Amino acid sequence: MSDTRAIGIFDSGLGGLTVVKRVREILPNENIIYFGDTARLPYGSKSRKKIIEFSIENTNFLLSHNVKIIVVACNTSTAVALYEIRKMTNIPVIGVIAPGARAAVAFTKNNKIGVIGTAGTINSEEYTKHILELNDKIKVYSQACGLFVPIVEEGWIDKEITNHIIAEYLMPLKIAGIDTIILGCTHYPLLKNGIANFFENKINIVDSAESCAAAVKEKLAELNILNSSAARGTATFFVSDTPAKFSEIGSRFLDEEFSAIKVV
Amino acid sequence: MSDTRAIGIFDSGLGGLTVVKRVREILPNENIIYFGDTARLPYGSKSRKKIIEFSIENTNFLLSHNVKIIVVACNTSTAVALYEIRKMTNIPVIGVIAPGARAAVAFTKNNKIGVIGTAGTINSEEYTKHILELNDKIKVYSQACGLFVPIVEEGWIDKEITNHIIAEYLMPLKIAGIDTIILGCTHYPLLKNGIANFFENKINIVDSAESCAAAVKEKLAELNILNSSAARGTATFFVSDTPAKFSEIGSRFLDEEFSAIKVV
Repeated sequence: MSDTRAIGIFDSGLGGLTVVKRVREILPNENIIYFGDTARLPYGSKSRKKIIEFSIENTNFLLSHNVKIIVVACNTSTAVALYEIRKMTNIPVIGVIAPGARAAVAFTKNNKIGVIGTAGTINSEEYTKHILELNDKIKVYSQACGLFVPIVEEGWIDKEITNHIIAEYLMPLKIAGIDTIILGCTHYPLLKNGIANFFENKINIVDSAESCAAAVKEKLAELNILNSSAARGTATFFVSDTPAKFSEIGSRFLDEEFSAIKVV
Repeated sequence: MSDTRAIGIFDSGLGGLTVVKRVREILPNENIIYFGDTARLPYGSKSRKKIIEFSIENTNFLLSHNVKIIVVACNTSTAVALYEIRKMTNIPVIGVIAPGARAAVAFTKNNKIGVIGTAGTINSEEYTKHILELNDKIKVYSQACGLFVPIVEEGWIDKEITNHIIAEYLMPLKIAGIDTIILGCTHYPLLKNGIANFFENKINIVDSAESCAAAVKEKLAELNILNSSAARGTATFFVSDTPAKFSEIGSRFLDEEFSAIKVV
């Protein structure tokens, strides 16, 4: 049985392309439909009600393309709206939080896990809840890092000053002695080197995009709806706005040429 | 003749409250209706088309409240959509750019003016065009400062690291030897001290909010539609979303207690 329907992935903007990249690495034959809500990003600083409203609209867009699974590649949407999205459909819905929490719990040796994300994600405490459900002996240290998304969008990846900003946010986690950190925002993998250096490379870094892609593969296999075609799958990108530099930013996340169709 | 109709002011978010603050200082008896599009902010990184669409909607909201003047307290909207907004109505429409440009041209002695703002404002080159129209001998040095808005929203006003970020963006303007700088974004007045220090307090700083308020007063006087009531005017605030901490952020800009009505 081969199911050629696409995997539907949405994010508040282009950060979710880090999830697309990981999905294409481990599921190269799958077709992908991506929607980035670039007209209304960022979600991390908005209210729960708006985040749910936007997430439902994004899901309806993907459902209208007959996808076989919905991937919520946005930590803020996952934290706030996953329950409402699941109520909308019978197809499986995978978020970025549960897979990341599971990976971190598997990695930690000293039971001290750090979680970083937007204010929306951190305030929801969803990572903490998932981690404690798996192991209530673990201590979770959370930190909202409001400037990390703008830094990545600005392209300040390898600048000296970026290391100072990283230190400003992460020092409390270092002092706490965490041995594992979850990058709880799809923009953050681009700061992975700087974060690793700050912890002198002595820490497990959980990239929620990577864990999420693994969870998608597992779920498709479990339901026997993998695409068994031998050809490389297609990837079609939709966005709600196409501002200046958006292709450049998209390519940064996707790690390959990026061009998208605008939805009016 | 006293005209008690309100002054209508809109911004992409709460930064425009720096304009409200200035208007209330010099026109304490005027009533004010403010609209902040907090559900869709920021505008600075969005496309021209979206910025125009959002600005028209905001203007219609203010017009429905029977205002006597429209103040576009958002540099990005002014840069991109002022022409379209003026076409919508016969009442006067004041943006933040022309008044700021005029003030800077009056200040400069060495004919070297720096302009800082969002990518949208800087890419539009509207400040440069206005300045050169007034005096084509002036050299304009523009710099988009993508992290300044997030820094202000994060509340990183007096941090040491903020001074490093300021230096990172403004060093080219210092090297160019500007004697005047326009804060071409309503968030930036909150970084005024740090910017002044970076230039060793030897520079004229044009706060576009302040120049804009002066232009509003001038226009109302010219049209003889000032409110001559002796009582302090009312200020009513509307927003399109009410996320966490928004009252705290609003109070920071307004410099007084802030609470708003949410528009559905």
